[in-house]
Amino acid sequence: MMSDAEFLSECAAIVGDSHLLCQDIDTAPYLTDWRRRYTGRALAVVLPTDTAQTAAVVRACNRHGVAIVPQGGNTGLVGGATPCEPGRQIVLSLRRLNRIRDIDLDNHTLTAEAGCILQHVQNAAHDAGRLFPLSLAAEGSCTLGGNLATNAGGTAVLRYGNARELCLGLEVVTAQGEVWDGLRGLRKDNTGYDLRDLFIGSEGTLGIITAATVKLFPQPRARMTALAAVSSPRAAVTLLGMAQEQAGPLLTGFELMSDFCLRLVQSHFPALRYPFATPQPYMVLLELSDNESEAHARGLLESILEASLERGVVDDALVAENMRQSHAFWHLRESIPLAQAQEGLNIKHDIAVPVSRIAAFIEATDPLIQRDFPGARMVTFGHLGDGNLHYNVQAPEGGDPKHFLQHEAAINRLVFDSVLAQQGSISAEHGLGRLKRNAIERYKSQVEIGLMRALKASLDPNGVLNPGKVLPDAR
Amino acid sequence: MMSDAEFLSECAAIVGDSHLLCQDIDTAPYLTDWRRRYTGRALAVVLPTDTAQTAAVVRACNRHGVAIVPQGGNTGLVGGATPCEPGRQIVLSLRRLNRIRDIDLDNHTLTAEAGCILQHVQNAAHDAGRLFPLSLAAEGSCTLGGNLATNAGGTAVLRYGNARELCLGLEVVTAQGEVWDGLRGLRKDNTGYDLRDLFIGSEGTLGIITAATVKLFPQPRARMTALAAVSSPRAAVTLLGMAQEQAGPLLTGFELMSDFCLRLVQSHFPALRYPFATPQPYMVLLELSDNESEAHARGLLESILEASLERGVVDDALVAENMRQSHAFWHLRESIPLAQAQEGLNIKHDIAVPVSRIAAFIEATDPLIQRDFPGARMVTFGHLGDGNLHYNVQAPEGGDPKHFLQHEAAINRLVFDSVLAQQGSISAEHGLGRLKRNAIERYKSQVEIGLMRALKASLDPNGVLNPGKVLPDAR
Repeated sequence: MMSDAEFLSECAAIVGDSHLLCQDIDTAPYLTDWRRRYTGRALAVVLPTDTAQTAAVVRACNRHGVAIVPQGGNTGLVGGATPCEPGRQIVLSLRRLNRIRDIDLDNHTLTAEAGCILQHVQNAAHDAGRLFPLSLAAEGSCTLGGNLATNAGGTAVLRYGNARELCLGLEVVTAQGEVWDGLRGLRKDNTGYDLRDLFIGSEGTLGIITAATVKLFPQPRARMTALAAVSSPRAAVTLLGMAQEQAGPLLTGFELMSDFCLRLVQSHFPALRYPFATPQPYMVLLELSDNESEAHARGLLESILEASLERGVVDDALVAENMRQSHAFWHLRESIPLAQAQEGLNIKHDIAVPVSRIAAFIEATDPLIQRDFPGARMVTFGHLGDGNLHYNVQAPEGGDPKHFLQHEAAINRLVFDSVLAQQGSISAEHGLGRLKRNAIERYKSQVEIGLMRALKASLDPNGVLNPGKVLPDAR
Repeated sequence: MMSDAEFLSECAAIVGDSHLLCQDIDTAPYLTDWRRRYTGRALAVVLPTDTAQTAAVVRACNRHGVAIVPQGGNTGLVGGATPCEPGRQIVLSLRRLNRIRDIDLDNHTLTAEAGCILQHVQNAAHDAGRLFPLSLAAEGSCTLGGNLATNAGGTAVLRYGNARELCLGLEVVTAQGEVWDGLRGLRKDNTGYDLRDLFIGSEGTLGIITAATVKLFPQPRARMTALAAVSSPRAAVTLLGMAQEQAGPLLTGFELMSDFCLRLVQSHFPALRYPFATPQPYMVLLELSDNESEAHARGLLESILEASLERGVVDDALVAENMRQSHAFWHLRESIPLAQAQEGLNIKHDIAVPVSRIAAFIEATDPLIQRDFPGARMVTFGHLGDGNLHYNVQAPEGGDPKHFLQHEAAINRLVFDSVLAQQGSISAEHGLGRLKRNAIERYKSQVEIGLMRALKASLDPNGVLNPGKVLPDAR
């Protein structure tokens, strides 16, 4: 094995001295994850400027036996982009690969490099009169490459799908430092195995995404929202079915929020008032995106809500008067995680179950948590239309949040077992990273884990890509 | 190696004597492909009744060194389900795995076994008040398993995607005869590698799909069509953009047909009259699916066509008066392949390019074909909204079709090279099978073929699954 100094000098020759960070003060922001759960060590943070440099760095790593932790905006929630294994590693930051390479209006596609900030991609599409619908809380700092490496979800999945469904083509640097040019802008291509979807969601453990061709959509003329008060998650699921039947693909958002969520918001951000005059057990935010007009969208929302009020599915409803009020309704929803953070440390879950089992999941799990952790406060909200809940648990009123966090493993176990009973997923949109990679041993079959290990061994036989992530420890 | 007799008696013990076909008269229908291009030989055709039997047959094949050719409805167009390699093989027909296992209305999902006829799946969804939108010419005899193994496309891809996008979960028998239960009905699940999409489209070379959970949709209230006459493919692409902007996701069909296509239809099926009073260079069939009403759909179609007539994009237009006339417009489109067959043998292509390059592709390729094969008649039609053309070539008027077929390799080369120049795909929806597996050597990078080979070696190290398909011959 050659020396670290030799390796670093090869890297410097590839990316230039100023893009090879070795001092603690420079590397620190890359070595701790966004939630500050993990801090790792690395020989260096390497910032290539293009695909060729990225591939050259990977080849140098192979020659020197150095592992690679790819990183985008470092906004992941499961520690997937933080080096945290023993051994020699670098963080390979894709941030400088930040060019929009092409926008093809007639094909409704955009090709961008992995380091582009999601919001920049959204803006580039918007400036071209198109919509790139991927949207999530971290959009101001997360990157397109990270979104694809983790198959990001967000608020528009109901209509447009996850990051996976929005991607037509990829450019990837393999574990061996070769470049796979799969940057196709095709809606149909049945010429071999689906390499694209194998790299998407693999969290940098099978290859390094350097660019992508994504789908664009016509910009809707109007996006209108409404708030509906319902007595239970079960009523919310009934409302979802009615809205889907009447609005079809115009329904682009369907978010559930419990009473406690909006009381937390009001308590920490008094300007954001509880939307109904009296407390409501659950509220739903519905959004329509309409290519005709604002009036058409509002008429459709009113018709859905009238029918559901008549049938007793909905107890009260507010239709946004205009786009400004639509934004205000979304602002309530988006303030829940912030209010929760203000309230104190808490235990987060990002779970999915079939939409038909959402109510059964909540009805079964809430009492189990109260039984074992009396007074625990449930912050239940999420993308009901996708079967995806952020089923978070806050310490009892007046309790010490830090003390409560000691129960994290036990609460996770309880929630995940309940998810399994409803044939769900313990990570709907955040991925496995380091945080949940060992948990899947309990929730996946050995056949599935065996298939995953076979694919990893096949594409990254020397284990240079993001070691200690996604796959459980060998037993 | 044990004897064939021992192997067959093991198979008979698994599936029962009556489901092990060994006589030529019984096996013949399974050994020739639908287009009658290939005929193969097999030790037997084995018809298991469920997943456990399927897995047991695969394990027996492994013990005896017998290869497996999985087969659904045997309607494939590239010879992917016909045994055609030397060596001992069986055809494993999934036809008896034909149960609809579950319909989950609130989750909008249906779980069915691989051998279910596509039309039966459509009907089961319809009877439950839902839509399963996958639709293609062979739907009366092709199977859901075959649709997924080949990532079938069809007429609704513009809005609903290919078979891949319609599938949420799979059950698969691996090359080793293990069962992977990935039958999840989840819209979001980021807990590991995307095994599902790796098996979808792998044409039975990586695993055998035995069941799937697919997405359902609300049934639209109305499906309305119109025909628009345009002067060129370029005008058709402009019309597509206008229709997408105005109708958004309500636009579910956008099919291009050349003048010659509809003259062929009229010539062989005189009841199907040419739709316009005077010949038109190209015609587009537009379809809207509407969750509001027939009147709303017709109004939207009229508004799109008025705007495009005004802008000179469209030269003439017919909006269906009712659902019956809508069906009649589709019938014209669907009769093109039949009319073409009546006209005589021809050379078919199933290509895709970015939508923005469709016009350039046709403008560049038509003259090249005339240069090299004067008088050849172009039967140009297809799913323009997906960038997918059936760019077929018929012998010159009065020429001998059989003689013309001698040019097949040269014409394929010309067309495929032109596809490559437009960054397209030489197989948009039919797959590679046996027919096109060697052609990809010219149109894919060695990096990509290397990745495909690595995946094949990883999941099917002994090469028992569908040998001689998808991957090019080793050089």
